[in-house]
Amino acid sequence: MAQTAQHNRQIVLAQRPAGAPDASTFRLETSIVPTPGPGQMLLRTLWLSLDPYMRGRLNEGPSYADPVAVNGVMCGGTVSRVEASNVAGYAVGDLVHSYAGWQDYALSDGSDVIIKLPAGATHPSHYLGVLGMPGFTAWHGLTNIGKPKKGETFVTAGATGAVGQISGQLAKQAGCRVVGIAGGAAKCDFAVKELGFDACIDHHAPDFAAQLAAACPNGIDIYFENVGGTVWDAVLPLFNLHARVPVCGLIAHYNGEGFTGADRLPGTMFSVLVKRLTFTGFIIFDQYPTYYGQFLSEMTNHLANGTVNVREDVVASLEDAPAALTGLLAGKNFGKVVVEVAGG
Amino acid sequence: MAQTAQHNRQIVLAQRPAGAPDASTFRLETSIVPTPGPGQMLLRTLWLSLDPYMRGRLNEGPSYADPVAVNGVMCGGTVSRVEASNVAGYAVGDLVHSYAGWQDYALSDGSDVIIKLPAGATHPSHYLGVLGMPGFTAWHGLTNIGKPKKGETFVTAGATGAVGQISGQLAKQAGCRVVGIAGGAAKCDFAVKELGFDACIDHHAPDFAAQLAAACPNGIDIYFENVGGTVWDAVLPLFNLHARVPVCGLIAHYNGEGFTGADRLPGTMFSVLVKRLTFTGFIIFDQYPTYYGQFLSEMTNHLANGTVNVREDVVASLEDAPAALTGLLAGKNFGKVVVEVAGG
Repeated sequence: MAQTAQHNRQIVLAQRPAGAPDASTFRLETSIVPTPGPGQMLLRTLWLSLDPYMRGRLNEGPSYADPVAVNGVMCGGTVSRVEASNVAGYAVGDLVHSYAGWQDYALSDGSDVIIKLPAGATHPSHYLGVLGMPGFTAWHGLTNIGKPKKGETFVTAGATGAVGQISGQLAKQAGCRVVGIAGGAAKCDFAVKELGFDACIDHHAPDFAAQLAAACPNGIDIYFENVGGTVWDAVLPLFNLHARVPVCGLIAHYNGEGFTGADRLPGTMFSVLVKRLTFTGFIIFDQYPTYYGQFLSEMTNHLANGTVNVREDVVASLEDAPAALTGLLAGKNFGKVVVEVAGG
Repeated sequence: MAQTAQHNRQIVLAQRPAGAPDASTFRLETSIVPTPGPGQMLLRTLWLSLDPYMRGRLNEGPSYADPVAVNGVMCGGTVSRVEASNVAGYAVGDLVHSYAGWQDYALSDGSDVIIKLPAGATHPSHYLGVLGMPGFTAWHGLTNIGKPKKGETFVTAGATGAVGQISGQLAKQAGCRVVGIAGGAAKCDFAVKELGFDACIDHHAPDFAAQLAAACPNGIDIYFENVGGTVWDAVLPLFNLHARVPVCGLIAHYNGEGFTGADRLPGTMFSVLVKRLTFTGFIIFDQYPTYYGQFLSEMTNHLANGTVNVREDVVASLEDAPAALTGLLAGKNFGKVVVEVAGG
């Protein structure tokens, strides 16, 4: 069913998944489009962002944000159009980047709006990627934690993903040797040929660790950690003294894998000590008040100048979002995943 | 055999230990006191420092410093007296803090001298502890990495050890709630009554984790990591957002224990991410050129004013050093371990 002006498709959390989410995790419901009351506006979802952090919201228990309630609408960043407005500063037709969730329509009092898109924004879905949370994650983690210096070696996994494609290109502009890690030859080719990485290694290769070492002849100075898992074992021996590790994600473990086997903590902490490493975890939502304006200005210029390339992986409809999220968590996407809910 | 002017007792590494060092690890040798040539001076060891890092030097393979050679004199910081000098700036009778190792006498060209002690230094062995490497470790890790703020909670293991006793007292002066961890009631009592800690928990207690949590009702903002091991499991759940973890040692693992059992790395990295933690490893030897002067000035004032208390654990003779090192690695010491080689 496509989006209409009468019906509001909503994808709700049917039950909390054990392991990877599957067909039983979400449920499609349809309700009547709500009517905004005083101080409210009606947002129509054009684009929905799918991001790895969403897996964490499916779990019960404390994290940095509240879990999605069972039977509640699944959360998610959106680009939405104002359809009706009783909120000062928002007029019918305005585009906003908000968190309207996995549904066609949402009421908003404006407090969940991150920004109003500039008039004439030519590629609204970029506000979910390169100009939004993933791009900002890449920029902040690289700039303020990674602190790249010319001639250093920067490594990221998920090289063609929403964060990796941006962090790698920015690191290249900062004068680093940039080595990506991705799943499969197509992604690795893309990282080198279209994103300008110096090398990109397929983590499925049986000699992955040796290939990574060969691609980093001067060691690793910055490792942008967004995957965790076995990639870590190949990265750890390559750290140079005083290397920096921004930690923004651990997608390999989001479905609960990875807690068996030998204890890798002592070895990691030994490296922290002996190599004087710095690990810094960050949640990008903390950084909006301080840095989002600066980031948006810089990244908008990059897009205008063509100095940053972007690849999106467009999901055709809202109904496909659950399967696309499962695929994203398994690394099946190729680029920033956005769902075309109504498009535009 | 006591120190004499004719014989040079030297303790050499007999063989590399597997696990904890024991009686077969070291060997006592006796040689003739050497005669300084041009550009050399003869140093007579008064005090020898024993420190956990020494365990690492017994292993083969790369670390941040070269291993001690088999049949070579064991390394170690000393306070030594100049007995004869062909080095400009050093006169007979000067006291120096150097790295003369586990022996009565050593030749030096001055390059291994950290500082010449001020004339009239009343407690020379303090230059191996509160005014030396361990005190500097405590000061740097707390000041430049921990960055304490008034009202925060600071936790250190090894509370009565060479580093912990200083870091805790400095954190207290910075306005922190200070909670120590130590082995046994006597050390815990000392930390509270003599060092001024707010609480100190015995890590042998069966309900250690619960006691630590109760002693940190507002969570942990700074954890000074110098032990590793199971203490970590009790500390990790208590971290507040944006907590800082200076990592200066992992004594629980130095003998090679702790690499079996479930993999604790993913859980630790999740906390790094979700709680926005920062881990920073450091090797204090890097910091001497930049900060040692500032540290020494501040700490000398603390001693003069009585605002920092110090406990030393004095080993009676050079021959006892091997057993004392084994004890130190097992947490049997009570205070900063110094060996009275010739005293003074």
